[in-house]
Amino acid sequence: MTLLDGIDGPRDLDALNPRQLEELAREIRRFLVAEVSRTGGHLGPNLGVVELSIAMHRVFHSPQDAIVFDTGHQSYVHKLLTGRRDFSTLRQKGGLAGYPQRAESEHDIVESSHASSSLSWADGISRAFTMTGQDDRTVVAVVGDGALTGGMTWEALNNISDDNTRRLVLIVNDNGRSYAPTIGGMARFLNDVRVRKTYQSLHRSSEQVFSRFGPPGRAIYRGVRGGAHGFLSRFTNNEALYSNLDIKYLGPVDGHDLQALEEVLQHARDYGGPVIVHAITEKGRGYEPARRDVADQFHAVGKIDPETGEPLDAGTGPSWTDVFGDSLVRLAGSNERLVGITAAMLRPTGLHRMAERFPARVFDVGIAEQHAVTSAAGLAFGGLHPVVALYATFVNRAFDQVLMDVALHGAGVTFVLDRAGVTGPDGPSHHGVWDLALLQAVPGIRIAAPRDGTRLTEELGEAVAVDDAPTVLRFPKGDVGEDIPALERLHDGVDVLARSDRRDVLIVGVGPFARLALDVAALLEAHGIGATVVDPRWVIPVPASVVELAAGHRLVITLEDGIRVGGIGTRVRQDLRAAGIDTAVDELGLPDRFLAHASRGEILEDVGLTAKSIARGVVSQVLGTRIPVARPLDGEATGHDDLLADADRARSSDDDSR
Amino acid sequence: MTLLDGIDGPRDLDALNPRQLEELAREIRRFLVAEVSRTGGHLGPNLGVVELSIAMHRVFHSPQDAIVFDTGHQSYVHKLLTGRRDFSTLRQKGGLAGYPQRAESEHDIVESSHASSSLSWADGISRAFTMTGQDDRTVVAVVGDGALTGGMTWEALNNISDDNTRRLVLIVNDNGRSYAPTIGGMARFLNDVRVRKTYQSLHRSSEQVFSRFGPPGRAIYRGVRGGAHGFLSRFTNNEALYSNLDIKYLGPVDGHDLQALEEVLQHARDYGGPVIVHAITEKGRGYEPARRDVADQFHAVGKIDPETGEPLDAGTGPSWTDVFGDSLVRLAGSNERLVGITAAMLRPTGLHRMAERFPARVFDVGIAEQHAVTSAAGLAFGGLHPVVALYATFVNRAFDQVLMDVALHGAGVTFVLDRAGVTGPDGPSHHGVWDLALLQAVPGIRIAAPRDGTRLTEELGEAVAVDDAPTVLRFPKGDVGEDIPALERLHDGVDVLARSDRRDVLIVGVGPFARLALDVAALLEAHGIGATVVDPRWVIPVPASVVELAAGHRLVITLEDGIRVGGIGTRVRQDLRAAGIDTAVDELGLPDRFLAHASRGEILEDVGLTAKSIARGVVSQVLGTRIPVARPLDGEATGHDDLLADADRARSSDDDSR
Repeated sequence: MTLLDGIDGPRDLDALNPRQLEELAREIRRFLVAEVSRTGGHLGPNLGVVELSIAMHRVFHSPQDAIVFDTGHQSYVHKLLTGRRDFSTLRQKGGLAGYPQRAESEHDIVESSHASSSLSWADGISRAFTMTGQDDRTVVAVVGDGALTGGMTWEALNNISDDNTRRLVLIVNDNGRSYAPTIGGMARFLNDVRVRKTYQSLHRSSEQVFSRFGPPGRAIYRGVRGGAHGFLSRFTNNEALYSNLDIKYLGPVDGHDLQALEEVLQHARDYGGPVIVHAITEKGRGYEPARRDVADQFHAVGKIDPETGEPLDAGTGPSWTDVFGDSLVRLAGSNERLVGITAAMLRPTGLHRMAERFPARVFDVGIAEQHAVTSAAGLAFGGLHPVVALYATFVNRAFDQVLMDVALHGAGVTFVLDRAGVTGPDGPSHHGVWDLALLQAVPGIRIAAPRDGTRLTEELGEAVAVDDAPTVLRFPKGDVGEDIPALERLHDGVDVLARSDRRDVLIVGVGPFARLALDVAALLEAHGIGATVVDPRWVIPVPASVVELAAGHRLVITLEDGIRVGGIGTRVRQDLRAAGIDTAVDELGLPDRFLAHASRGEILEDVGLTAKSIARGVVSQVLGTRIPVARPLDGEATGHDDLLADADRARSSDDDSR
Repeated sequence: MTLLDGIDGPRDLDALNPRQLEELAREIRRFLVAEVSRTGGHLGPNLGVVELSIAMHRVFHSPQDAIVFDTGHQSYVHKLLTGRRDFSTLRQKGGLAGYPQRAESEHDIVESSHASSSLSWADGISRAFTMTGQDDRTVVAVVGDGALTGGMTWEALNNISDDNTRRLVLIVNDNGRSYAPTIGGMARFLNDVRVRKTYQSLHRSSEQVFSRFGPPGRAIYRGVRGGAHGFLSRFTNNEALYSNLDIKYLGPVDGHDLQALEEVLQHARDYGGPVIVHAITEKGRGYEPARRDVADQFHAVGKIDPETGEPLDAGTGPSWTDVFGDSLVRLAGSNERLVGITAAMLRPTGLHRMAERFPARVFDVGIAEQHAVTSAAGLAFGGLHPVVALYATFVNRAFDQVLMDVALHGAGVTFVLDRAGVTGPDGPSHHGVWDLALLQAVPGIRIAAPRDGTRLTEELGEAVAVDDAPTVLRFPKGDVGEDIPALERLHDGVDVLARSDRRDVLIVGVGPFARLALDVAALLEAHGIGATVVDPRWVIPVPASVVELAAGHRLVITLEDGIRVGGIGTRVRQDLRAAGIDTAVDELGLPDRFLAHASRGEILEDVGLTAKSIARGVVSQVLGTRIPVARPLDGEATGHDDLLADADRARSSDDDSR
């Protein structure tokens, strides 16, 4: 029986003595390495916050006190300490989420996992506690140093500082890096604090430090001056970080010294107003392979060998990201106007390849999507062509900037959205399913969705050649796979991937859903329904030949790996109607709800985006005579597999599930 | 002939002596009061930056040097100094824009006019200048103190500080208020600087100040120490504002002292790296009625009497804003859980009425929409029901927060979006036309669009009763007008406003477009086409009875004061198709392009959103037999007015223009 086995909730920590707590920390690290190496997940960040999580749960009483994690991938230890020890299905369908999740535990509050929001959450919660007489509840926000570059933190601090009566503790978990080494002026400041770890001139300033806290502070100072020399040597005061905000600052404290952490958190808790606690931690702490990985410190891993840290399930071929990274380097070699911008995602977006080759032409602005986009508009004004590489889900943070700063000014900026569509194990906040609906609302924008690696390279080249409007390339996570050849390229760049003698159904496959479209077409052909499959390549604006082709078919199906509400399908339909073409259009995409974590395949199956399910929908429409096909089907005659047998049932449920 | 008459471009300022410059400033103030009182516009902000604009154009050489205005409503003086003296049609169709506009002048660069973006623009432009060998060009950003609360400024400063070789001058135009007195910790800091205007201990610190600038700084210090005592007394150094960012700070300087301004700007220009210049100005300077208006200092005015400042064209009745403000006060009186949040728009959104009655329950977070939304999610978690009052165009800034922080967590937060739809004279950045398309993509959201004052009150009450999902109310600018009575309220809350014996066309009017829908119906009836008109009241999700009614008609027309791309109409159509109803749907709304400034009526006319134009479209479809109506029309027989005579021509252009 380990100590961890005895922890069913945070209050079980109360009985442990300092030595046992140290042992618990070791057990948790062993547990994390063993479990996460089996399932994949965020290893480095969680190894870094073991002591911090223990100390936090000793000093604060969750859920009475509200603990909010910024981003949330550092909540594994918190999960362990709040009674969730089954990590066997971490990030798998029905298993433990990789982020806090309210449905899992009353100890989880914020599950959004887009960075830099925790301070605003904490501001709101603490305000509500004060206003509703819940004055004894403290709100604790845990935010990584990297997330502090996000503008939301500035907006929140400016408001938090405005009110000094709330019980609000902001713990800056400073590991000197967000996903990659943190850049910018603030990072240099934090680094400066770390370097001055010798804490010289501490004694001179300590009285002054604590007297700023008013009577409680003076009491602390008197308390520590009497002999707790060790305490003082562990944290001091650095006013400069937020000196323009009326918010007290305690730190830096060694984030792996349990006793020091508890002491500083107790002081913060008892202060009675907003306090920043600056804890210095080491990402990947206690796991040698992570420590050796200077670039990323095992931020997020797939399945790995727990001894060596070597990946066990490396992809079988190049990823979409790889193809983009290489293509951009080639383009940049021949076009000096190309510059790259990323928001703390240099390596995950593949932009590091350009950075290695042309270091002066790539900018990592930190977690700051709004700035990434607007500064790109500025770069374009100055004569360059920026390529802004983001995850699709994070472009949501900068919609207004794409609209107002890039599009309104007709700036030639190319957005490359990686991890577009259903991504899988990271859950609702990481699916890149809103970008198409959002960005197609931007006047003048041009959106490409490559179906394979060759098209990605080709469309990237086309995108960076546009200098008077924003262009977008969006592609999914994972291996890029084999190319999908075209039978013919039409005059406006639309690729025809399949044809039939009978022009019953036109299937418009957006991006890699071209493959799904081909599978649907094959099933339909087997049932006597003829299908044409096209990849528009540039989906916005809708190419004219898609509209023309639609006129010659009896049903149009659009397939997109994004929400169907306001999706590309709606635009195809509007353009058809504007052209006087009344061919019915089925707009297939993701449903109007948040999608839980599961594998990509499981999710697509659940929402009916499989070839079989889609083909069923078509067949049932044909049988129901809603769609008169060239050679009418006879349900009995052709009903030799489950497709038709299930058709009626499928039809009624499909419409709901998409 | 005035001095102003001789200014055809900024270089004409070079020949003027100090006394002439003072006289020019006086002329400009007289000009602004005389002209803006005739047309309406942003008076207070421009009266505050007369000397600053003159000094800036003397020291920096636009367009060689790039001048970027944050928000841009303070660019009138800049327009005057760059050869634009015809203010007679300011903010009117075809006239001078109220914001910078590239099409007007090579001296205008940023026209987006959403606050807090100028530093990111300046970062990008200056980086591009450096990278492309345009090292001699300086970038100047002019940002109000109020806009500094926006997170983008933090993101930008963090990046600007990272690079100390660029020629970049950030002028903080500090009038101690944004639209209203600025709140928050940063505002207190700025205020503190203003209070310490005596600049004590200046001499002690001045050597240290300038030595930080390296050799140029030391030269400055030596220069000023020799006798320029007057110079030194005008500005000093306040490190604390951005002490954690490696960016030099000069100030505060009296923003109405032309000579001091020129000197400090020259030093900033010659420094050779990013510099913040802190200028203290007085909004409404030199205009007595503005000075007396403590609350707003004539930020934006309609037509006024230039002598008294009294409005000449006050609305004839209560505005939508008034109805909201009063209704909220009533609801707040009986529901203690209601709290109000605004982002520096307390009075313009009508939330000041609740603030006057319940001051502890209204929070102005400053220009910080992201924080407004996420802190609302926190307030909801803590047990309250926040009402977030914003302009529709500014919710674009916080889409991700509505999605990830509010909707994903099922938080009961009500968003009240004022100035929704085409607003008119402020141009493309201020039309609130994206909110419906954007927000309908948020799972679980419920959106109401009241058609009149009674419905606003009623729907607000319904909205704040929803505690498990975001709700939205959106309504336009201006007078609320007369109520539009319903013939019947259906089981799910849909109001039927007009009926016909012949069920040819169902017109779904979103919000105040209910009136337009009734006008269209009347025109159609006159041409033998029967129309039913409904106001769904809650437009998302689409009420079931709208779908049911559609089944009994031959054509559905949706009318929304928002972009038709991804609009409510697309959702109606999807729901129809899901229900197996193939009635044709015409989704009418605003076109997929940016809309220039003009009156609301002119814009709606231009885009074909008039009753006549819409009725034409329907008639031409009927004549073209695309829509078989109950009693087929004979073009000749009924063609007794221009509606049908114009039908063919109208039809072909309408599809493009919407």
